[in-house]
Amino acid sequence: MSAGAGEGRRRSRRSGGHGANTRGAGGAVRQLPWEIPRNSDAPTEPLTPEQVQAVHGGAMRVLEEIGIEFLNDEARGVLAAAGCQVQPGASNVRMDRGLVMEKVALVPSSFTITPRNPERRIVIGDGHMVFGNVSSPPNCADLDRGRRPGTRDSFQDLMKLTQHFNCIHFSGGYPVEPVDLHASVRHLDCLYDKLTLTDKVSHAYSLGPERVEDAMEMVRIAAGLSHEEFESTPRMYTNINSSSPLKHDWPMLDGAMRLARRGQPVIVTPFTLAGAMAPVTLAGAVTQSVAEALAAIVLLQCVRPGVPCAMGSFTSNVDMRTGSPAFGTPEYIRATQMSGQMARFYGLPLRASNACAANTPDSQSAWESAFSLWAAVSSGVNMVYHAAGWLEGGLCASYEKFVMDCETLQQIIVYMKPVPASADDIAVDAIAEVGPDGHFFGCQHTQARYENAFYQPFLSDWSNFESWQERGAIETPQRANRIWKQVLADFQAPPLDEAVSEELAAFVERRKREGGAPTDF
Amino acid sequence: MSAGAGEGRRRSRRSGGHGANTRGAGGAVRQLPWEIPRNSDAPTEPLTPEQVQAVHGGAMRVLEEIGIEFLNDEARGVLAAAGCQVQPGASNVRMDRGLVMEKVALVPSSFTITPRNPERRIVIGDGHMVFGNVSSPPNCADLDRGRRPGTRDSFQDLMKLTQHFNCIHFSGGYPVEPVDLHASVRHLDCLYDKLTLTDKVSHAYSLGPERVEDAMEMVRIAAGLSHEEFESTPRMYTNINSSSPLKHDWPMLDGAMRLARRGQPVIVTPFTLAGAMAPVTLAGAVTQSVAEALAAIVLLQCVRPGVPCAMGSFTSNVDMRTGSPAFGTPEYIRATQMSGQMARFYGLPLRASNACAANTPDSQSAWESAFSLWAAVSSGVNMVYHAAGWLEGGLCASYEKFVMDCETLQQIIVYMKPVPASADDIAVDAIAEVGPDGHFFGCQHTQARYENAFYQPFLSDWSNFESWQERGAIETPQRANRIWKQVLADFQAPPLDEAVSEELAAFVERRKREGGAPTDF
Repeated sequence: MSAGAGEGRRRSRRSGGHGANTRGAGGAVRQLPWEIPRNSDAPTEPLTPEQVQAVHGGAMRVLEEIGIEFLNDEARGVLAAAGCQVQPGASNVRMDRGLVMEKVALVPSSFTITPRNPERRIVIGDGHMVFGNVSSPPNCADLDRGRRPGTRDSFQDLMKLTQHFNCIHFSGGYPVEPVDLHASVRHLDCLYDKLTLTDKVSHAYSLGPERVEDAMEMVRIAAGLSHEEFESTPRMYTNINSSSPLKHDWPMLDGAMRLARRGQPVIVTPFTLAGAMAPVTLAGAVTQSVAEALAAIVLLQCVRPGVPCAMGSFTSNVDMRTGSPAFGTPEYIRATQMSGQMARFYGLPLRASNACAANTPDSQSAWESAFSLWAAVSSGVNMVYHAAGWLEGGLCASYEKFVMDCETLQQIIVYMKPVPASADDIAVDAIAEVGPDGHFFGCQHTQARYENAFYQPFLSDWSNFESWQERGAIETPQRANRIWKQVLADFQAPPLDEAVSEELAAFVERRKREGGAPTDF
Repeated sequence: MSAGAGEGRRRSRRSGGHGANTRGAGGAVRQLPWEIPRNSDAPTEPLTPEQVQAVHGGAMRVLEEIGIEFLNDEARGVLAAAGCQVQPGASNVRMDRGLVMEKVALVPSSFTITPRNPERRIVIGDGHMVFGNVSSPPNCADLDRGRRPGTRDSFQDLMKLTQHFNCIHFSGGYPVEPVDLHASVRHLDCLYDKLTLTDKVSHAYSLGPERVEDAMEMVRIAAGLSHEEFESTPRMYTNINSSSPLKHDWPMLDGAMRLARRGQPVIVTPFTLAGAMAPVTLAGAVTQSVAEALAAIVLLQCVRPGVPCAMGSFTSNVDMRTGSPAFGTPEYIRATQMSGQMARFYGLPLRASNACAANTPDSQSAWESAFSLWAAVSSGVNMVYHAAGWLEGGLCASYEKFVMDCETLQQIIVYMKPVPASADDIAVDAIAEVGPDGHFFGCQHTQARYENAFYQPFLSDWSNFESWQERGAIETPQRANRIWKQVLADFQAPPLDEAVSEELAAFVERRKREGGAPTDF
């Protein structure tokens, strides 16, 4: 888990720390210092041990009797060689539980990912929980400009927010799809922006060999690594979604295998909306999700035994009258908890999301997101995708929601810290000293602790009504609006060696000249 | 736990059921049927067993070595007779842990409260969780009329919402203080309204003998009970707050003893804001809270052994810069969980709240309330006060927040239901039937279940952005505004025998003639 001696090699002009803790240090927003939180709560377990076995048995029957479609010849070849049942000319692959459990046992229960700034290394698993920005919405919105398709400008804005907030530990997919960049070269500009505007863990979309290879190369260049150093430990990751029910598509498998071969982690996240792409029952939807995730993980363990993988949970329900997906619902919480039980059963790290269905950063968005975060904490989730900025079931990245979510993420981080309960904390002496007629503010026990006793929010307004009204009765989204503007106005990109920056730019230039990635349009 | 043969005696003109489930039955709002939910989750326990013992030890030291002020001669007399150390002329009472544990052991671990409609009986304890309306704010607010002091009109409005929503199981204190009613007779009009506009469990403020006795008498009359029947089982309750630190005031003790003597339950809720009225450390604040609660419970068990009591948790933190109380914070959640551990240690039911500090029903109010509800669920709370309508740290009852809270309470109720995970739920056959190219909506497994598969919200909007925009881009508080208006427009009071109604009115009239309750102003 050491950062590797070679990593600092080309950082001679780095100007030092990255200002992780801006509390009181001139930053736009008082915030918590960078840290990788650890969740000490026992997970909530709606399934009995027998039911866990039954879900496992169901998933094994899916893999053994029904099979999964692998729409990728190379993947099927790998699986056939490993002993799976593959029929020539057909995409269906069946695998028996012995093989599945043998391969799944190879997955490390936790792993690190080290970005270009090794101080931003994250841990996936081992009780830790890390948060990433919203990924992949086609639209963005803010209170001033309304809702609009994403552009490079808004992409950069959201990457700056991603970098600024210490509670965002990694960068997921594009926080908004910049449709003003042609799809053939979009990944080059986006990766360049991600790697220069942030120094946090980055991600590659598994959307074609060129994009995947370019992303790995750019992450390598940005970190000043040799190819060997790049492959020596996880530096980035990809997330693949099955095409539920029961299908893994070509580009996702291709990208996952490319990363796996170079020792880079793959998160496998079936998108199993109960009643649509999965059974209407939560137990059925989770069973199918588990089967789909394990199938891809088996493939990746065949490609490179021991490569880091995580299981993703994206099981939720739909509105059965309209088909609209729902998030942060009672069903979503339970499905995530059940997925957590299954992930622990297989010894796999778990990914989930901070999702909501609301169309605007109002109270519905807040309770749906709070329930999604509750799901994450109570399920022992290790990696929370879409942790800040998500609206509309993922179709919109909201600037204000991003800030609101960072407020609640900070609260979750504080929540997860152990509660001290020593004799000194139990404070009988202070209770005796203050007595029935006193007040605790003045006593020594309080004075010694008050500055750091409690979490101080940067967005919540705890003032009384009169004072709140005097200051203009500003509601939460409007306060968030002010904050993101301040963050963007104050933004300074993290240090990057000029030679590295030039090498990255030259790579982008060359690959653009070569045409980037092929597109269908 | 039977309703008692005499209870129907004077209900000959009751027009039947109370329309508990208005789903699709012409009610203003599709809602869940009346039910007393049960929380099957294992509680989250931040304290180790040794730390539970240490907090207990601290609370016992407070009771043994520091003592609690009982500002009530009668209470001190009772405690002295039971063996507590009481000095003549001083209000301090010390009690040793042997006595405390002996008395606390008399408290039933669960009990019922049966209001005038026995179908609205609630259970406190035994894994159940019940919700009550916001209590005691001086102000109310809605989007049309803004924030204003409470009046009888708004009091009645909020009682109608309390009655309408099946997720509100009991009526707490006044949902807003009607300041247009003179304090001497306010309780008479309020109780009359409560007992005629709702048929749910009611509460008496422990604010002077007259108010307490009048409340008990009116509850008895409304239920058509003899005095013996009234006392045969819990019919109502009171909640008392200690005057932290370490003090129980005269009227609270007087009211609590009056109810206890007649077998009516008392909730004892210290109001221990860490850093203000209690130690700045959560462990210290919980220790003090436990000591204060146990002290009153010991008194009540001396007054009437076995009388139902519950411990209340109201430990939260303050903003150390301004002194403003905060709710729904990480500290609030942890303090509630620790209180839950202590309540289970003593075998006592636990009360907490759905609290927030926000000044308006915006996103902050929603995440703070969601975190408070998370606290309740993860702490094994049995009784959630202020579950709907609370804003501003309790200084304002919001009509819209009431509706928003009922939406999230319904979701919590659904969340608490066990998740089915039989072989049929695991649904391997349905997965096989649908296969990789199908969709689950059409399959028999879905068709047989879809109508009741998932919770359907009445307030959340899950439509896509375009459809939401076409319908006017209505944000959640505005949708809630429409709903409460519809509920009030459609409201029908629950059936009440006319003779009972007349008897109640005559009682109010007589007591008003007598001057009601003495006031200080």
